[in-house]
Amino acid sequence: MVINKSVNKISVPGFLANGISAGIKDEQQKDLALIYSTIPAKVAAVFTKNAFKAAPVLIDTERVKRGMAQAIITNSGCANAATGKEGYQDALAVSAAVSGQLKIRDELVLLGSTGVIGKRLPIKKIEAGIPKLVKGLHEFGFEDAESAIMTTDKYPKIAIRKGIVGAKDITICGIAKGAGMIEPSMATLLTYVMTDALIDSKALNTVFHQSIDATFNSISVDGCMSTNDTAIILANGLAGNNPLERAQARLQRFRDMLTDVLMELCHAVVKDGEGATKFISIIVEGAKSRSDARRAAYSVANSNLVKTAFFGEDPNWGRILAALGSSGIPLEKERVSLSIGNMLLYSQDCPVNINQAKLKEIFQKDTIEVRIVLGGGDKSYCVYTSDLSYDYVKINADYST
Amino acid sequence: MVINKSVNKISVPGFLANGISAGIKDEQQKDLALIYSTIPAKVAAVFTKNAFKAAPVLIDTERVKRGMAQAIITNSGCANAATGKEGYQDALAVSAAVSGQLKIRDELVLLGSTGVIGKRLPIKKIEAGIPKLVKGLHEFGFEDAESAIMTTDKYPKIAIRKGIVGAKDITICGIAKGAGMIEPSMATLLTYVMTDALIDSKALNTVFHQSIDATFNSISVDGCMSTNDTAIILANGLAGNNPLERAQARLQRFRDMLTDVLMELCHAVVKDGEGATKFISIIVEGAKSRSDARRAAYSVANSNLVKTAFFGEDPNWGRILAALGSSGIPLEKERVSLSIGNMLLYSQDCPVNINQAKLKEIFQKDTIEVRIVLGGGDKSYCVYTSDLSYDYVKINADYST
Repeated sequence: MVINKSVNKISVPGFLANGISAGIKDEQQKDLALIYSTIPAKVAAVFTKNAFKAAPVLIDTERVKRGMAQAIITNSGCANAATGKEGYQDALAVSAAVSGQLKIRDELVLLGSTGVIGKRLPIKKIEAGIPKLVKGLHEFGFEDAESAIMTTDKYPKIAIRKGIVGAKDITICGIAKGAGMIEPSMATLLTYVMTDALIDSKALNTVFHQSIDATFNSISVDGCMSTNDTAIILANGLAGNNPLERAQARLQRFRDMLTDVLMELCHAVVKDGEGATKFISIIVEGAKSRSDARRAAYSVANSNLVKTAFFGEDPNWGRILAALGSSGIPLEKERVSLSIGNMLLYSQDCPVNINQAKLKEIFQKDTIEVRIVLGGGDKSYCVYTSDLSYDYVKINADYST
Repeated sequence: MVINKSVNKISVPGFLANGISAGIKDEQQKDLALIYSTIPAKVAAVFTKNAFKAAPVLIDTERVKRGMAQAIITNSGCANAATGKEGYQDALAVSAAVSGQLKIRDELVLLGSTGVIGKRLPIKKIEAGIPKLVKGLHEFGFEDAESAIMTTDKYPKIAIRKGIVGAKDITICGIAKGAGMIEPSMATLLTYVMTDALIDSKALNTVFHQSIDATFNSISVDGCMSTNDTAIILANGLAGNNPLERAQARLQRFRDMLTDVLMELCHAVVKDGEGATKFISIIVEGAKSRSDARRAAYSVANSNLVKTAFFGEDPNWGRILAALGSSGIPLEKERVSLSIGNMLLYSQDCPVNINQAKLKEIFQKDTIEVRIVLGGGDKSYCVYTSDLSYDYVKINADYST
């Protein structure tokens, strides 16, 4: 679990949560989670760009536009994607059951689903579970909620920060599930952030998008974009701080804390990527544009040959150049340099004479930094990725059955 | 081996070939190949678009512009890529050794290399092997040459067609190596085609590009583009047929035979993809443009989640929709349909109620056809791909060491 050591109990003023087994998954695993703010909270969200958006994503996208939300109900074990109008009605039924039990307006309920695509939700099981889920809501329930949204994740991902912002103590807590289908354009399947900060709606939307861009939109496990990717932040204002508005130093402080929470979560998602044994940073510098740097970094990060070389601890760095060269961005070969773990390997269109034993040592580490300098500008981008192992294949060769 | 059953001995009039062990690879494996036309032949070629083109690719690109070639010298075990000016000089030295032994003009020699990137060629071993290689040239040497260009290929790939074109019997024979780094933009590492047809240079160039586009540029094993991809055709004209020129019916006949040879080779490359256990056709129809259809097909073909599902024989077809939806092309969900092995799975934004046992049977086959109909136009594209298995990871986790 990823917890700031200075915090003993994980809670955010005004938020309750819970996670139970509703029988969606086999074997009594937790599979239904609820996060609830005791008062309506301001909301901002980022969703997948996949054309086959899941029913909960379609509903949330509409509801988030109103700017307020109070609950997030999430199931694992079924994505409710590619399920058409019936799947949409299923999601509405889940929402109605939650709002009925919580006695709140239905449009204040947001939904999340993760699991197999193309299957209908077991709606009766979910409806039957909701009263128990609501009844069990408690102040320290984020860990239960997190357990219930996990699929192939090996460990829960929770991050929390407390600090003084706008003259009051505020708390920001985030939970995430990741593991598979982790990709560029909006990364983890589900990330929920809860805060008691008092913040203007527009400012919340802006800082959330900026923070997501700097964190979850810079990771890649397998280059596959999900139909369900969702990141939501709820801010209930109960901290009573001086309100956070645009262009304020205290908003900057809030954004730094938020980015810190999201960075901790997104690193945990990469480290817990399906079958991952390494955490790899691909840093591209000296690009003409940020988009060139991004394209180059993702071309390397998503190369199966690069990823298997890292898994095998095989210092076959030529594959990094091959992946870079296939990215399609304009390159001046003579100005490109490549370093791994601060060891220069390639420069001025030539391999550098290096100590192979030392390079092997670098490849044997758990955390590896790849630095590519293009030498044609001053823009940069960093992507965090994992390796490609037998276990990735094993996990994904037998997922739905 | 892929041989047209009607042909007993593999040879093309006026061509000699050989393959030997020059000690580039370990354990006495063949690693140096030579193909030689007894008279200068017309030449056309297609090369990788990778920005880090290997030295032999840079040299060939220049030499092919002259329109004539007479020999192709190829080594496996070292790609001579990312080796800078020294690597370029190494390749020129190999060429000089070959032209000296063959007593032909140096610029008639083309070069190919495949293997690890970033290592220098063992030039002395190669120079020492060339006299033996030249001395052993023989009429039926294509199989020896093919053995010497293989890397992780499990079996050799040779295809041959004979037929009457322009009132004479002509022969087209192709050899290929594939296995890893097989990708969209110019696929296999090395493909060489030899023919005795008499053909105009421009016509040869046109039909070769058309045939490559319809074959090798429509396959994908792992979505990784090599620094060394090279396809070359040599036409020595010894068949003495009525010359093949632009806009002739007999040129069309030649192109059909050539496409046939290349299609057989490229299917063999996919089937022998690293760790491949399945041959999968991804057919996209009803697209607004061919480039949309191509983008959609590659998005599915290169998805690790789709590929692992096929390897696991796991009928998790939702991943195909997720991959399609992440392709970035405009999609009208309601008009999209998905079939696998002629079984309709998804249509009108809804999963079709299907027999799961029958679907499982389809996934258990060696050859699987995925058909996606977009329903917004009449353009189509087909990509041939393989699955992603433990063996792909195994082979690539330990390649250079």
